[in-house]
Amino acid sequence: MDKNYYLGRRSIRRFTDREVPSALLDEILEMAGRAPTCGNMQLYSVVVTRDAARRRELAALHFNQPASAGAPVLLTVCADFARFTRWCEINHADAAYDNFLSFTSAFADAMILAQQITTIAEQSGLGTCYLGTCIYNAPEIARLLELPERMVMPVACLAIGWPDGEGVATERLPQRAWVHEERYRADADEDIVSLYKVKDEYPANRPFVAENGKENLAQVFAEVRYPRAMNEEFSAKLLSWLSF
Amino acid sequence: MDKNYYLGRRSIRRFTDREVPSALLDEILEMAGRAPTCGNMQLYSVVVTRDAARRRELAALHFNQPASAGAPVLLTVCADFARFTRWCEINHADAAYDNFLSFTSAFADAMILAQQITTIAEQSGLGTCYLGTCIYNAPEIARLLELPERMVMPVACLAIGWPDGEGVATERLPQRAWVHEERYRADADEDIVSLYKVKDEYPANRPFVAENGKENLAQVFAEVRYPRAMNEEFSAKLLSWLSF
Repeated sequence: MDKNYYLGRRSIRRFTDREVPSALLDEILEMAGRAPTCGNMQLYSVVVTRDAARRRELAALHFNQPASAGAPVLLTVCADFARFTRWCEINHADAAYDNFLSFTSAFADAMILAQQITTIAEQSGLGTCYLGTCIYNAPEIARLLELPERMVMPVACLAIGWPDGEGVATERLPQRAWVHEERYRADADEDIVSLYKVKDEYPANRPFVAENGKENLAQVFAEVRYPRAMNEEFSAKLLSWLSF
Repeated sequence: MDKNYYLGRRSIRRFTDREVPSALLDEILEMAGRAPTCGNMQLYSVVVTRDAARRRELAALHFNQPASAGAPVLLTVCADFARFTRWCEINHADAAYDNFLSFTSAFADAMILAQQITTIAEQSGLGTCYLGTCIYNAPEIARLLELPERMVMPVACLAIGWPDGEGVATERLPQRAWVHEERYRADADEDIVSLYKVKDEYPANRPFVAENGKENLAQVFAEVRYPRAMNEEFSAKLLSWLSF
């Protein structure tokens, strides 16, 4: 096992012009397809976007983040109960998977697959970056990629290509912050402050506070990057689109 | 990269009595904690269950599946916005993360972490098995593990230990079934039948059809393993508990 890879893992947002061969991508997907899956149902699909014009359209739905606009390949990983449901219908089986429980199963399957693709692609020398915006514009991305309605939802988009540069190391909370022994440990406020010091004091994070006219990093997250109005607007859009 | 590991990967449901050293588990979690995370927010927590009595209580909530009852360690991976929200509140930031969009971000973070733990644990020689039932009894598991209400949801449980035996190889759909070029390919029914032949004809799957008095494997899935009444009941329970 490559400990150095796991400990030093970084997202890559800039890529060279070098192509990602189809044979290499196929091999990565073949390996990733052996990842665990709920009841061996493989409740996922992957749409591969290579065409330049379509990449531009897709990148626009990812707010033209640099990783989306510059990657030679975008993989949209979808939670997919449509294929399985059609197989059931063909077999005269009473399939009921258009509900929230089934959505969570397919979501989990898709994320497991996405992370397996990420690890294997990176261990093949490629650089990757998740585009979390996939969920924000899920209905629009579904339309662009011609996903079947209702039971196929894009949940993760991966930008993939050959790294241009080494990426940027980011800080992480101490393990103690997120690992709990036997029961969830309700930390006192002073402990939370202490656990998040690594973020508050991380040199690369400091400029964001002044740039955004805020008092501290938490306000940058809660009021600029992931603000209430945005969260509530996109939540309403998604829930209405999914209509559980 | 260990292609043989990825291509031959299997879940392990039976474990020896040998203990999993804390130092090894800590090392695995340290490496896994470098996995990608939404906006570097680390929207997850992991509760480690080792105590025998608590393992029995937790296994009961996983319907006493063999992997849950026999594993020396159970890891419950949670989508967690509670810690981040408290950090925001302490910093007088207006945090609004008790909504569906935020839930999907934390769910994705937790699954990425869970899969990274799985891969690293397996590459360390351990065996693992996901307990998908985690979501079915999320409210009850949350109570047992004393998770804060509303913003911490258990989404994946991993049974971990030293393998007793090699596990069972399972079939997978051909890659063509779940990989789509440029746009989602709407398969004709005869193509779906052909893609699922590997499942219908897999020797280990065949006994399930007769045992359950069904005509085919799809009916075993849709009417016995993941039936409508169960899906709808657990969906209603979860949605009411999460109350987006």
